[in-house]
Amino acid sequence: MILTVTLNAALDVTYAVDALVPHATHRVREVHARGGGKGVNVARVLAALGEDAVVTGLAGGATGLAIRAGLAAAGLADATVPIAGESRRTVTVVADGDATVFNEPGPHVTAAEWRAFTERFTALAADADAVALSGSLPRGLPADCYAGLVRIARAAGAWTLVDTGGEPLHAALAAEPDAVTPNAAELARALPRPEPVAGVTPEEALAGAEELRAAGARAVVVTLGVAGMVAVTDEGAWRARSGAVVRGNPTGAGDACVAALVAVRSRPWPERIRDAVALSAAAVLAPVAGAVDLAAYRRLRSGVVVEGVDAAGSRR
Amino acid sequence: MILTVTLNAALDVTYAVDALVPHATHRVREVHARGGGKGVNVARVLAALGEDAVVTGLAGGATGLAIRAGLAAAGLADATVPIAGESRRTVTVVADGDATVFNEPGPHVTAAEWRAFTERFTALAADADAVALSGSLPRGLPADCYAGLVRIARAAGAWTLVDTGGEPLHAALAAEPDAVTPNAAELARALPRPEPVAGVTPEEALAGAEELRAAGARAVVVTLGVAGMVAVTDEGAWRARSGAVVRGNPTGAGDACVAALVAVRSRPWPERIRDAVALSAAAVLAPVAGAVDLAAYRRLRSGVVVEGVDAAGSRR
Repeated sequence: MILTVTLNAALDVTYAVDALVPHATHRVREVHARGGGKGVNVARVLAALGEDAVVTGLAGGATGLAIRAGLAAAGLADATVPIAGESRRTVTVVADGDATVFNEPGPHVTAAEWRAFTERFTALAADADAVALSGSLPRGLPADCYAGLVRIARAAGAWTLVDTGGEPLHAALAAEPDAVTPNAAELARALPRPEPVAGVTPEEALAGAEELRAAGARAVVVTLGVAGMVAVTDEGAWRARSGAVVRGNPTGAGDACVAALVAVRSRPWPERIRDAVALSAAAVLAPVAGAVDLAAYRRLRSGVVVEGVDAAGSRR
Repeated sequence: MILTVTLNAALDVTYAVDALVPHATHRVREVHARGGGKGVNVARVLAALGEDAVVTGLAGGATGLAIRAGLAAAGLADATVPIAGESRRTVTVVADGDATVFNEPGPHVTAAEWRAFTERFTALAADADAVALSGSLPRGLPADCYAGLVRIARAAGAWTLVDTGGEPLHAALAAEPDAVTPNAAELARALPRPEPVAGVTPEEALAGAEELRAAGARAVVVTLGVAGMVAVTDEGAWRARSGAVVRGNPTGAGDACVAALVAVRSRPWPERIRDAVALSAAAVLAPVAGAVDLAAYRRLRSGVVVEGVDAAGSRR
């Protein structure tokens, strides 16, 4: 069983409007709501791949109930832990093919709720072959809470992956997760720089990934959007990119990358990276986050270009 | 007892962000939610004036429950009728003191739900001295549904007011409501023009109001924002405006106008208009829709300028 963890679960709401005009009143033509959060999307993709995925995390209030109803409707095993606070919504306003996003901050989690979650997580991790921990933290949780969960999962014998950024990522490294998967901005915020930069080149990403590995991560996979991915592992370092340019909805591509890395965790790293790039591209081709085009995934896999590199970024 | 009707009740949500940037992702700093809809705001103002207000309308789903919880928290009598559909939200994004509004379309109401509401409304109207019907219609309701409710209320001996626009306003006129209160845009959409105009001058408003009276309304009060109001009644026609310029939140000013007209419905029309202008201004001074600054209301009343006009718009 693969356990996905979403501590700041969300109801992802999409508003279709004719045009976004600041300071105007808009009639929303269509409202679409989907229970989400990054770990939920990972579980959806794992289920599409035929894996046995279980969703845990924190969910509260009417929005939490809506998120859980969405898990049930998707046929996902729901092991979320209830909290008193109201789970957050994200509102994406789509007009003319462009999206403007509003992310609510999420609930405040009490110390007692966190203890209850940790107990539930410990029981779930005992049955898990792998654990993926995804996304931002709701208020009230310590920045090192992913580190604690990774230690519990590793003690239970599970393979572990952390997909987050900034201080929660930095703090998780000490627990030596099997993989971390920052995007460029998350990597930049996790590095101890006086002036964090929002974008990094593949060469900077390799150097940053080396730093995260030195701090404890067993493998670091940096997702760079259309520029592909770089991976630094104990088997070596690689750069990979899709042979075909895909256009579509990039939301959820990172979650598909996580799902691939978890699903093929026992294979050699160059194969893992190939699958991660192909499945991310297949997610871009799907209309909503958490969905993948499996036929495209199989088709794209052979076209992914994987090159070994040394730590300075040049080809081997 | 005064009955307020909100067929398309809403949960009014406010997002505070640093700046609204189209196509960007925004971290929402603060989320504020308040059960609303125009008739709910009318009831809040009536309660502040010491009137015995009862709220009815249609509410469904988790959002409907949140709206009803808000009524209870405000101490308002809740006679809403449940529906299967999910009540709508409005999302107002506030940045730099400016507001950008997204209005969800609202639920679909079934014929059986509408019959159940009509039965409940008939029972409530029997105990009502006055009935105020406010706002847009959810999907599934006929455009003439306010006409049917006005007839039921009038048959029960209640004074009636309809605050809406366009086709629902136009269709309500045949039932001869005691007052209708369109704003300039609502008036323009209710007039049978080949090219409706969004804004009207006070002179055009008077002419339009005469048309609505000819179609059945006993009195027509057109709200014109900072330009005040014009009223055409069976006692004569008036133009009124606040002597003091007020700045603040105009949302809810129209609902305060309705509350004033209902509360002072037994007095001569010039006094009613004076109160409506003063209470609307007092609503602008209050931070949220449905609230009024009662001290300002009393202070502003004497400064309201009320002038008799003839139907062509010149002073008498």
